[in-house]
Amino acid sequence: MPGTEGAGERAGAVLTVDLTAIVANYRLLCRRLGAVGCAAVVKADAYGLGVEPVAAALAEAGCRHFFVAQLDEALALRPRLPAAAIGVFNGLFPGEEGIYAENHLLPVLNDLGQVDLWAGFAAHHRRAMPAILHLDTGMSRLGLEPAEVTRLADDPARLDGIELRYVLGHLACADQPRHPMNTRQLAAFGAARAKLPPAPASFANSSGIFLGADYHFDLGRPGAALYGVAPQPEIPNPMAQVVNLKGKILQVRDVDRPMTVGYGATHRFTGAGRLATVAVGYADGYLRSLSDRAHAFLGDVRVPVVGRVSMDLITVDVTAAPPRAARPGRWVELLGSRHGVDALAAEAGTIGYEVLTALGRRYHRAYVKA
Amino acid sequence: MPGTEGAGERAGAVLTVDLTAIVANYRLLCRRLGAVGCAAVVKADAYGLGVEPVAAALAEAGCRHFFVAQLDEALALRPRLPAAAIGVFNGLFPGEEGIYAENHLLPVLNDLGQVDLWAGFAAHHRRAMPAILHLDTGMSRLGLEPAEVTRLADDPARLDGIELRYVLGHLACADQPRHPMNTRQLAAFGAARAKLPPAPASFANSSGIFLGADYHFDLGRPGAALYGVAPQPEIPNPMAQVVNLKGKILQVRDVDRPMTVGYGATHRFTGAGRLATVAVGYADGYLRSLSDRAHAFLGDVRVPVVGRVSMDLITVDVTAAPPRAARPGRWVELLGSRHGVDALAAEAGTIGYEVLTALGRRYHRAYVKA
Repeated sequence: MPGTEGAGERAGAVLTVDLTAIVANYRLLCRRLGAVGCAAVVKADAYGLGVEPVAAALAEAGCRHFFVAQLDEALALRPRLPAAAIGVFNGLFPGEEGIYAENHLLPVLNDLGQVDLWAGFAAHHRRAMPAILHLDTGMSRLGLEPAEVTRLADDPARLDGIELRYVLGHLACADQPRHPMNTRQLAAFGAARAKLPPAPASFANSSGIFLGADYHFDLGRPGAALYGVAPQPEIPNPMAQVVNLKGKILQVRDVDRPMTVGYGATHRFTGAGRLATVAVGYADGYLRSLSDRAHAFLGDVRVPVVGRVSMDLITVDVTAAPPRAARPGRWVELLGSRHGVDALAAEAGTIGYEVLTALGRRYHRAYVKA
Repeated sequence: MPGTEGAGERAGAVLTVDLTAIVANYRLLCRRLGAVGCAAVVKADAYGLGVEPVAAALAEAGCRHFFVAQLDEALALRPRLPAAAIGVFNGLFPGEEGIYAENHLLPVLNDLGQVDLWAGFAAHHRRAMPAILHLDTGMSRLGLEPAEVTRLADDPARLDGIELRYVLGHLACADQPRHPMNTRQLAAFGAARAKLPPAPASFANSSGIFLGADYHFDLGRPGAALYGVAPQPEIPNPMAQVVNLKGKILQVRDVDRPMTVGYGATHRFTGAGRLATVAVGYADGYLRSLSDRAHAFLGDVRVPVVGRVSMDLITVDVTAAPPRAARPGRWVELLGSRHGVDALAAEAGTIGYEVLTALGRRYHRAYVKA
């Protein structure tokens, strides 16, 4: 692309990802898990933050086990992490066996058909094939349901040739420590495991790690907490904030007459004030549900987003900020230590996870290491 | 990337963009505009659909004028469209003048500071520099406000050296034909133009084109309608649907006991039924606000999305579909002629524009031409 130099200055917004904070979060989770291993979930481009730099930083910090959702994500990651274990949540499909084997990827087997497929491949090649077996304990998305576990228990030879690295379970309500689903799923996981040949287990996602040692088993599997999302919304967030997003002020206007702002004319200025237009919009993943609800920071002053979020622009009421701070070319902080992913998510009516995965492609991205 | 062949089969979802439909929509808009020219707005990666193939198809269909939001978007587009006029909505900033000039890009001048900057550059280089002048008539985002227009009218020499290709206005409520903002903005645009040296004008976005000839001036500037979004929600959509999104079924489970589905256990099955897990989630831009609200098609059967949208997965109640249709490896249509972008947007509580710009990066993308 011509003129790539200076792209940071030209950019309408700059997203800074703090790799040191991700590593600090990984280490905090490792301490919580004690002697239990700690994998890293880096699916969806490391929750939108960029899988290559994120996975490299985690590997450098000692992480040896990674999870992605899709086979293509694993294939993109493998050359960057030649020695790591890489598990693929979405499972094994006919015709993919050789790709998994050649690239030393661990399929997560989600139903008996996938078990048979992998066992058949192992038998054909006369070697043990490693895999992870997913037991559904109440998500009803992926994994063997109880009746399938019983069928497998009745015919354990179906696992011949499969080296069970882990059995895996997934919590539905771990962010709510007192939700009855947690103990119910824990019991169901124990009951299902008891029917099957012994194997190490992985059960806890980010929030599950904070439910206590009963949930830890042999491998923690955090994702969101690595990236700064609060694992337990009811208590202060122990994770370091990872992302900072600043948007450039394109224009500032003094308001001295009644006027409306943006599409649908939803916001009306009645008194005097100042309005700044910032180069970020819903095409950048600054969700349209933030219209007339979000806040940002201009210097130390908290300023509200007014009017509808447009595709490429937002408008911010900067009346409360010093006039010298609100000038074209200056930056407004949209995400940062004072207004983190969970706070912005609450304004959007969603969760921090979606704020992260929505982060846009037009942002100039900077990765920092302390 | 290793193993790129077969990515379409391996993909969790396939997004098909019908370039012929985009061209048909362009031609329909041209007919509506009659003798008035028709530009194409291709900002935000052509509303998420891929600016390179989309712009190439439109250029081949005769489009000669394109608009983007950001300078970097224009720089990426210029090598693909060496002869087209490319306007940049977000304006001109100090230090960028040479980049605009070298790449023959048209800055949209949004305030008097930008006018002075461009006029200064023209004077320094002793040549006329082309530009578009944006007059704000009620969006309160970008553009000269009325007081600035008056100041410019009082000192028209500030435009010396600037070749005004167009003056530009932008409608706030054009999708609501009877909204009083439309005539108010039209009057304000006329009043502002009357104060300035004569120049061609561009006023109508997609919806504005359908407000009638009074709004057409010299250049229409559609974006959303090109991509199939209804320009006037109150009347049947005259635009062809452009996108088809299908997600792969990863797993199907029979429900024969009361059970909950997904995070937060928000959906509860009480009777018998069947549930399919599909490889699309909010990390793919299938917005989380679609949880428990969206619909899809399995064959000809309309099926509801149940439970929360996860990062990489949704669950669909396929009880009403024939069992042979709901099998792993089969496809569920999430966007298409029977359930278009506006219908999905209504389920998500947003507009079709955001459904398009959110379309994810993990989709296998196919571009078709009749």
